[in-house]
Amino acid sequence: MSLKRDMEELLFSEIPITKALGIKVENVTDDQVCLKAPLENNINHKLTVFGGSLYSVSVLTGWCMVYQLLKKLNIEAHIVIQHSEIDYLIPVNEDFKACCEVVTETKINKFSKMFKRKGRARIILDVTVMNGDKRAVHFSGDYVVHK
Amino acid sequence: MSLKRDMEELLFSEIPITKALGIKVENVTDDQVCLKAPLENNINHKLTVFGGSLYSVSVLTGWCMVYQLLKKLNIEAHIVIQHSEIDYLIPVNEDFKACCEVVTETKINKFSKMFKRKGRARIILDVTVMNGDKRAVHFSGDYVVHK
Repeated sequence: MSLKRDMEELLFSEIPITKALGIKVENVTDDQVCLKAPLENNINHKLTVFGGSLYSVSVLTGWCMVYQLLKKLNIEAHIVIQHSEIDYLIPVNEDFKACCEVVTETKINKFSKMFKRKGRARIILDVTVMNGDKRAVHFSGDYVVHK
Repeated sequence: MSLKRDMEELLFSEIPITKALGIKVENVTDDQVCLKAPLENNINHKLTVFGGSLYSVSVLTGWCMVYQLLKKLNIEAHIVIQHSEIDYLIPVNEDFKACCEVVTETKINKFSKMFKRKGRARIILDVTVMNGDKRAVHFSGDYVVHK
């Protein structure tokens, strides 16, 4: 519960526009992060969620995942999004949740080794937004972490 | 002047979150659209613009360009963003402007023919955000227009 609140506080203080977007932390563990946001704040004229809001929540879900990963690895570093791609598969017409894929141990080890060697490492994360039980958005973000 | 105000009104009424983002129309003609937004509304903890806001302004710049194009071609249709990619080249640390590339006549003709034949057409648009005189963001959006 406290980890959730801490993460929310972090988001609100570091990126104030997250409040207007209505972003909340749905779930955060060492292995997974899900953020959520209401349709109401992010609605468009078709009564579905604006594509820019779907992107913003997705990119932040990945960012929070990297943040958790750095905490787990005891690394203090900056996180920067360098490149990303997003596919809008079907419209989202309700409050929505974005979840980051679980990062495999292999990926974590590679990332950690690279950071130790170079003070800089890259990790690609996938985020999914569901509409009901259907995948509505696929996001892939290329995050760079540096000292 | 009035075209600018009309486009702003359209954005605010169709996608209300644009108000919180502080989006304004900088320039709109038949051939080009530039939107702008302030650092203040979109700031992050590094005192630069949040990546999600850079995306939102870019995707809307492309959307407005397609809107203008449909008006020019006298087509009434829905505009949907289907896929996009964004590269963050350097951070943006000031109020910013996103401009859509001018759409070539060849591209317009192909688009128009396709729409007439199938009632559905696709157009890929590039948007650039500058930081001072340097290119800070490159966005490429794949928009689908359908009846």
